[in-house]
Amino acid sequence: MKLRTSLYSALLLSSLLISGCSTVHAPTTAPADSPSVAADPLPSWNDGAAKKSIINFVKVTTDKSDPKFVAPENRIATFDQDGTLWTEHPLYTQGMFALARLVEMAPTHPAWKTTMPFKAILSQDKEAMSKFTEKDWMEIVAVTHTGMSTENFEAIVKDWLSTAKAPRFDRPYTDLIYQPMLEVMQYLRANGYRTYIVTGGGQEFVRAYAEKVYGVPPEQVIGSSIVTTYKEVDGKPALMREPKPFFIDDGPGKAIGINLFIGKRPYAAFGNTAGDAEMLQWTQAGDGARLMMLVHHDDGTREYAYGPGGGLPDTKVGTFSDALMTQAQKNNWTVISMKNDWKKIYPFDK
Amino acid sequence: MKLRTSLYSALLLSSLLISGCSTVHAPTTAPADSPSVAADPLPSWNDGAAKKSIINFVKVTTDKSDPKFVAPENRIATFDQDGTLWTEHPLYTQGMFALARLVEMAPTHPAWKTTMPFKAILSQDKEAMSKFTEKDWMEIVAVTHTGMSTENFEAIVKDWLSTAKAPRFDRPYTDLIYQPMLEVMQYLRANGYRTYIVTGGGQEFVRAYAEKVYGVPPEQVIGSSIVTTYKEVDGKPALMREPKPFFIDDGPGKAIGINLFIGKRPYAAFGNTAGDAEMLQWTQAGDGARLMMLVHHDDGTREYAYGPGGGLPDTKVGTFSDALMTQAQKNNWTVISMKNDWKKIYPFDK
Repeated sequence: MKLRTSLYSALLLSSLLISGCSTVHAPTTAPADSPSVAADPLPSWNDGAAKKSIINFVKVTTDKSDPKFVAPENRIATFDQDGTLWTEHPLYTQGMFALARLVEMAPTHPAWKTTMPFKAILSQDKEAMSKFTEKDWMEIVAVTHTGMSTENFEAIVKDWLSTAKAPRFDRPYTDLIYQPMLEVMQYLRANGYRTYIVTGGGQEFVRAYAEKVYGVPPEQVIGSSIVTTYKEVDGKPALMREPKPFFIDDGPGKAIGINLFIGKRPYAAFGNTAGDAEMLQWTQAGDGARLMMLVHHDDGTREYAYGPGGGLPDTKVGTFSDALMTQAQKNNWTVISMKNDWKKIYPFDK
Repeated sequence: MKLRTSLYSALLLSSLLISGCSTVHAPTTAPADSPSVAADPLPSWNDGAAKKSIINFVKVTTDKSDPKFVAPENRIATFDQDGTLWTEHPLYTQGMFALARLVEMAPTHPAWKTTMPFKAILSQDKEAMSKFTEKDWMEIVAVTHTGMSTENFEAIVKDWLSTAKAPRFDRPYTDLIYQPMLEVMQYLRANGYRTYIVTGGGQEFVRAYAEKVYGVPPEQVIGSSIVTTYKEVDGKPALMREPKPFFIDDGPGKAIGINLFIGKRPYAAFGNTAGDAEMLQWTQAGDGARLMMLVHHDDGTREYAYGPGGGLPDTKVGTFSDALMTQAQKNNWTVISMKNDWKKIYPFDK
């Protein structure tokens, strides 16, 4: 099934992509002070249709005299994560985590050296990795993401994030968040919106850092999840992570997940791939003002450029297809050009 | 599987219980004004250990100088619904809904007259109903709860609740909520707690009225759910309810559901049966002050009296077992006596 294989395909790509990834010097780290623009809630956005549509949406939905006013309790905005809130190339951060953890765990699993699929990863056998089946990738995710309590998993993720560095920028992965999107989230929250992350990635993976990184608390992170079971461990109850998928929060699953977790239709939704299309459709199908936006990665200098939509190179991570571009135009979804709409990409950019 | 059969067993019981249920005259409807007790946040509670434990819990967890202070974003309280927030006898309200809806749908399903299990219900064949299998009950739930969009289902539930009357009290089911528990919810919310309903009942059933009845918005209702699928219907996206269980929010499922939906451990949890035990255990296993309470239905005059815990009659709806009573004592969970702790049961009581 296509949706379920996305993470595994991504993992597969990693060996191919990482090796081809050039290391660039990170910009000096001191973040530039934002210019004092009290009147501008989106200082990292260039003036243009995208910025205007966000500001107009907030204006009409929070003005009591406007027919499109939305009651505060219904102000819900949903954000995909990978490629929408932070960088997803050369590989989803969670994919990096799985590979790193497998390597880290290998010394206490000597059999992996001679057992596929682990052997291929540990020996960097790209030929063998390119032939991995979904079952192989299920095994990799199972050994790296399951078999521990939810609390232990959270600690493992936090520990890894505190030391791991993204290859191109030589910075923590959590530095590679998009400053303009942080401003949108803050602007919406300042206007009574609750900002939810709705990610195809692992719900408990993202919850481990979402509050610190995005200001989004655990209960506002909806993601893919595995089965957990309730067990007494050393006389205390624990929730154990089992090697069995429970919910795939991608494609139609995003609309389903929003209904399951929130029970309200969003007024604004942000994504960057076909896996976000149903979330945007579901949002748009409501009455009144609705804001649907897609981030287009067209800035190979400051971040990455990939499509194939918009005539950019094809990719298997975060694909923005021609069909999605057509769908966006047909439905009047706003396509954000990272190159033209964003003054800064990352908080650390000057 | 025991948990999955609880609703079906309940449905089964209905035919036996309803017929044996005496009709009493409802009290005159004008609610008595609460006496002016600005200083008492729980006016419908008699003084005693139960009331004291609630007030003390709120005091220590909201006092910044107390070592047991809880930051506002972590103030989570969870409430079972059936038997904890409203009356569950002679049968869960959702069971009543399923039976009523089956009868209502029967004219357009003529084959049901001659097809089991529907035939037994339509002909009030108690002998046949007593032999229903889980598969029979699955069919009943499937035809009454699925095959429509989530929006249509919500409308159906609201419509039924607006006219249906609970047999003994001859009042809308949503009148049969416990005034003392409403006061606890309001008191907790006034002190920064978010109050979640964590029910074995259907999540979308309860969401249809929880905000109006309890002040609990949809995103704070966690319940059992079925699979939904995303479909385009008449050119618009819809979420369709499918005849397939997705998540059973009962027993260990309540702790699992709380982690899945909230990702935070509650500080207070309220229940009334063994199906709530894991929720209370999970709550208690956290640090600091924790409040665990069980409602004991020991007031056959004003509501119902059932156990068998506490030497009351046995029942299959909302059983409070001897084992649960022992567990409560062992773990220092507070058992609320409806008879002794509550001045009023319902808002309409004088």
